[in-house]
Amino acid sequence: MKEKVKFGLIGFGARGSDLLRDVLLPMAKDEGVELCGVCDLYEDRAAAAADKIEEATGVRPLCTTDYKEVIDKTDADAIIIMCAWEYHIPIAIDAMKAGKYVGMEVGGAYSIDDCWRLVNTSEETGMPCMILENCCYGNRELMVLSMVKRGLFGEISACEGGYCHDLRHEVSYGEENRHYRLRNYTHRNCDNYPTHELGPICKVLNINNGNRMLSLTSTASCAKGLHPYIVENRGADDKLANVEFCQGDVIKTVIRCYNGELITLTLDTTLPRAYSRRFTVRGTKASYWEDTDALFVDGKDNEKEWRPHEMWGTAAQYEKENAHPLWQNYEAHGGHGGMDYLVFSAFLEAVRAGTQTPIDVYDAASWMAITALSEQSIALGSAPQYIPDFTRGKWMNRTDMPDLRFRLDKLPE
Amino acid sequence: MKEKVKFGLIGFGARGSDLLRDVLLPMAKDEGVELCGVCDLYEDRAAAAADKIEEATGVRPLCTTDYKEVIDKTDADAIIIMCAWEYHIPIAIDAMKAGKYVGMEVGGAYSIDDCWRLVNTSEETGMPCMILENCCYGNRELMVLSMVKRGLFGEISACEGGYCHDLRHEVSYGEENRHYRLRNYTHRNCDNYPTHELGPICKVLNINNGNRMLSLTSTASCAKGLHPYIVENRGADDKLANVEFCQGDVIKTVIRCYNGELITLTLDTTLPRAYSRRFTVRGTKASYWEDTDALFVDGKDNEKEWRPHEMWGTAAQYEKENAHPLWQNYEAHGGHGGMDYLVFSAFLEAVRAGTQTPIDVYDAASWMAITALSEQSIALGSAPQYIPDFTRGKWMNRTDMPDLRFRLDKLPE
Repeated sequence: MKEKVKFGLIGFGARGSDLLRDVLLPMAKDEGVELCGVCDLYEDRAAAAADKIEEATGVRPLCTTDYKEVIDKTDADAIIIMCAWEYHIPIAIDAMKAGKYVGMEVGGAYSIDDCWRLVNTSEETGMPCMILENCCYGNRELMVLSMVKRGLFGEISACEGGYCHDLRHEVSYGEENRHYRLRNYTHRNCDNYPTHELGPICKVLNINNGNRMLSLTSTASCAKGLHPYIVENRGADDKLANVEFCQGDVIKTVIRCYNGELITLTLDTTLPRAYSRRFTVRGTKASYWEDTDALFVDGKDNEKEWRPHEMWGTAAQYEKENAHPLWQNYEAHGGHGGMDYLVFSAFLEAVRAGTQTPIDVYDAASWMAITALSEQSIALGSAPQYIPDFTRGKWMNRTDMPDLRFRLDKLPE
Repeated sequence: MKEKVKFGLIGFGARGSDLLRDVLLPMAKDEGVELCGVCDLYEDRAAAAADKIEEATGVRPLCTTDYKEVIDKTDADAIIIMCAWEYHIPIAIDAMKAGKYVGMEVGGAYSIDDCWRLVNTSEETGMPCMILENCCYGNRELMVLSMVKRGLFGEISACEGGYCHDLRHEVSYGEENRHYRLRNYTHRNCDNYPTHELGPICKVLNINNGNRMLSLTSTASCAKGLHPYIVENRGADDKLANVEFCQGDVIKTVIRCYNGELITLTLDTTLPRAYSRRFTVRGTKASYWEDTDALFVDGKDNEKEWRPHEMWGTAAQYEKENAHPLWQNYEAHGGHGGMDYLVFSAFLEAVRAGTQTPIDVYDAASWMAITALSEQSIALGSAPQYIPDFTRGKWMNRTDMPDLRFRLDKLPE
């Protein structure tokens, strides 16, 4: 067990800056983490991050606009990748080749080949690569996972999830705030961000661990949401007012698994709405729906069949008895309702112990591949696409993967 | 205008019996309708219906097990078809050929050819054929339709709907109660019942009336729900306990329209849950979700972005100002919360006036075709299927179809 763990940090847009403040600096203060290098393509962002680290820890990290310097010129044990989507996999590959653990923020892949290169590099170098999918550590997601693992849902037939988040502001202010989403919305049409909902679903369905995703279709709606928003909020003369957006307002992706389970994903980011990940798990004995926070148990709730609103909010009744061990005495802190701290802690624990990460390179490849396959399916008129088996058959025997574990002895009080 | 309108009635399973009691006998009593003939394949059912009509009206209708007798041996103005799904189209065709209006209960088609024959017969004979989709007349469906038509939702990008109804009892008791669903669940795998949700969505999207459905994919989950239910409720020795069901627990169908709108349909009938049609309309200015009965208005509700539960039930606030004219002074009666009465009244009005019906043969064909195309897509591994243009191009010019109208002067007090 390493007492000191050194992280090199890449990417200080909104996500990187928030994580530095909410999770990484606290870990540097309390948990023996050293932040030994920072990088951003924009010098001002890198410098600001280095300043904050120096201020908090007294030690100035290596500060650069070339991510390879963080990998090669520091003695980081792990590289944390928090930059624009298209650089996640190339940086992860370079880091693993240099013998570093990789902790990679979420995003979709641009090609299936990239996903294979990620897997191949991890297998060749022996270095773990964890996609830092915080939503796998969400309170409700873990409560339902616990209940499913204990058999309370029976057999699972179908799951749903979504990234339903009104990003009209974020996308349309992309140029000013140097946000990578803008170029994706003007050049691509796909489920560009599937892992927040897919990650927790894959853990429920034991994907890559006795089950696997086999094929998908994906279909896009028209792109009507951004234009009126831009005209109304930025004026008809704004340079985005006449841009034709490529990205459909709503993307539906339907995945079929080896065991027959259906997964339906929704990307829904350019129409007015409240936030939802639409987490839904449908079993033969019970079901959960995030949108109504309803937990329906067969034999108990059937009398409410025609009064569905009486099911709204019923999941709260199950919190006390069924909270996942990670959440039982956990007072959420550290960003996104506590999920960020949990996922980073799980990563830190693996780096410290030199073990495999609880979300591994096969998870990363198969979850990120959905974006590339969604783009292919839409381009081909919703033609079904085969989902590669990135484990090369290992999924058939791997039924012993670690649960989404975490140092239970170190939970904050 | 006919003072007296004569209906011949075919099919007295659960649906036919309920309609007789809740809608048809009241219409015979109060609205100048004569019920001149009844038919069911089962003699006991036909006789029971004839008894009830004789008791209520003093006149015994022709009573037969051969539907052709109701068509040929009575002077019915219209034939109401309420029997098993597979007989809807053949009976409708025979009725139109005999110069009768057709009012056809809902269900899906078994082949695209059947849908074409339905359209061709209506065109050749000049007889209207209305699919009696009661959910087009639902309170929330009509409120949202009204708001969409007044522009309050902006442009529509996506709609969703479902037939989400735990039918495990109905399917597994199919043999005893002679229910047609059982044979469908053991022999087919498709969205077997799409029109309850699709009808209202098509009215919102002006399908066949300036817009049309172009293509779909459909994907089925495994069929895990019925077996444990049967073993638990009927015993392991029951003859259905070892039946392998064909029909997946959850079917997702994703439709793309000419104008780019996305329609997502869910059939969800063999897992525990409360009822929902999942009616969802997503516009650039507002959205509605049935499952939370939430109506989100851009510029008004955005501050609730991270408190989605505060949106639950908000649609009720819009009822008073935005109720569809049909519902403004309507005290619901006559089955399914008032929808049954409204749809039958609309049909009766058209027959009485000798006009086209507000839901026409092109609606019937295109909505029912989704079942056949869903079956095809699932059989072909979710391959996209082309949705025929049953209007033969008329949809491009037909932007003047009657709204879902009804005698406003005859609303009950």
